[in-house]
Amino acid sequence: MVIQIVGLGLIGGSFCKAIRRSTDHTVLGMDISTKTVQQALREGAIHAEGTAATLKTADLVIVCLYPEQTISFLLEHREDFRKGGIVCDACGVKTAVVDAVSGSLDRSGVRFVGCHPMAGRELSGFGASKADLYDGASFILTPIAETDPDAIAFLEEFARSIGFGQTVTASPTQHDRIIAATSQLAHVVSNAYIKSPTLREQAGFSAGSYLDLTRVAKLSEEMWTSLFLLNKDPLLFEIDTIIENLKQYRDAIAAGDADTLRNILREGRELKEADLQTNR
Amino acid sequence: MVIQIVGLGLIGGSFCKAIRRSTDHTVLGMDISTKTVQQALREGAIHAEGTAATLKTADLVIVCLYPEQTISFLLEHREDFRKGGIVCDACGVKTAVVDAVSGSLDRSGVRFVGCHPMAGRELSGFGASKADLYDGASFILTPIAETDPDAIAFLEEFARSIGFGQTVTASPTQHDRIIAATSQLAHVVSNAYIKSPTLREQAGFSAGSYLDLTRVAKLSEEMWTSLFLLNKDPLLFEIDTIIENLKQYRDAIAAGDADTLRNILREGRELKEADLQTNR
Repeated sequence: MVIQIVGLGLIGGSFCKAIRRSTDHTVLGMDISTKTVQQALREGAIHAEGTAATLKTADLVIVCLYPEQTISFLLEHREDFRKGGIVCDACGVKTAVVDAVSGSLDRSGVRFVGCHPMAGRELSGFGASKADLYDGASFILTPIAETDPDAIAFLEEFARSIGFGQTVTASPTQHDRIIAATSQLAHVVSNAYIKSPTLREQAGFSAGSYLDLTRVAKLSEEMWTSLFLLNKDPLLFEIDTIIENLKQYRDAIAAGDADTLRNILREGRELKEADLQTNR
Repeated sequence: MVIQIVGLGLIGGSFCKAIRRSTDHTVLGMDISTKTVQQALREGAIHAEGTAATLKTADLVIVCLYPEQTISFLLEHREDFRKGGIVCDACGVKTAVVDAVSGSLDRSGVRFVGCHPMAGRELSGFGASKADLYDGASFILTPIAETDPDAIAFLEEFARSIGFGQTVTASPTQHDRIIAATSQLAHVVSNAYIKSPTLREQAGFSAGSYLDLTRVAKLSEEMWTSLFLLNKDPLLFEIDTIIENLKQYRDAIAAGDADTLRNILREGRELKEADLQTNR
């Protein structure tokens, strides 16, 4: 079949390379930068350039742009997709995207499914993309009541065929609440952590724990500003929750209250141990 | 020479194994648990059991107990060490230990140096100890004005001889301020992070960022309660700082203020990038 990837950054580029590696599908690559398209062609990541006109030839279109651009692209090109064709996105927030485009695409006869490939790197752009980025990762689908069941089944099989380890189905709301806790909060906390002035004088002291806590502080502020603002309420809940929890440790330490401190640390250890049993 | 290790847990056991692996020194192991001493003997991690009586035979004694026990052991046995012998500890807080024992040990003719081997695991006990735990790690020394320079030089050479990658000298106060930011805060934040109720429903969503952020949530609440309370002020400063910083993200998100949010995220990214240049 013919697959058109829109946006050849880290996510889109990795889709192209994974599809080329694992399947015989024809891959068309569309990007605002001619240079990037040329590079993708040279590296054999795509068979040919994709354009607005070639969208009609694609059995599957995967839009890999930032959330706002994903929404405008889908709405702008809603009549350019093949009738009955399958279109999905790859944004890290789902309610905002699914709510904005589902009705229009539906009326245009396009089978749209909100998706989120759970993988990333601290790097971005086509140069950072790789064929194995998704190997073993989760491919999340966020269908709504109107979503075509065949399109869901098709995408689940497609995801596994290019290396994803599992597919997970959740409602857009459930996805956004959970992603606020597992991914967005991690980026906020990591970015806040690195701001301690004490860290400027710590050469030779850097422990593994500190490197872990600040790894994702190196983020794209453009992308994450957009993701955070499109997922306000769930993320605010998570930030407020961790602030409240941090205050408990703070107060126990300030009071020299060993019993309380030991108890709240034990609670955290036990939750992490339970979590390791579920998630490893 | 003869080296006596006091406390055969993760830290002490790893010292025994690293010394046995890399040197010809005689290693005596002292532990409150006879079982652990037997195991260390069986595994060849020590040559013989160490006792209060053998302390006098040791050129170097490394005390690897929790902070309170380290202080009581050093004070209780101050007349049992060899006059002119070198004694160091391995605690994660230094001002509390160095202040409590330096004068007494000095008057007893013992050359004491506060030390902190910067390595650890999420596991504890002799069973978790390993010969390569310190390979490439930092060995931190926290001498004071009265500390014998020869003892410092001796320990620096010793640390390198058993695999440490570098030695760092800092005042006890400087050590404690920095360790609050690089290690203690990481454990508090990680332990607080795992308490989000949303994480209980996240099977299949767990991203790398979340696993990094919560790795050290699995901690020994006994040990960390002690370390936190012995380093109150520096740690409170760090917790208050990250709470203040988190509130900035919170407020920008609540206000939908993309410019401010982008700016504070960029600041964090730039600090992390500068940090990577210094610490990797």
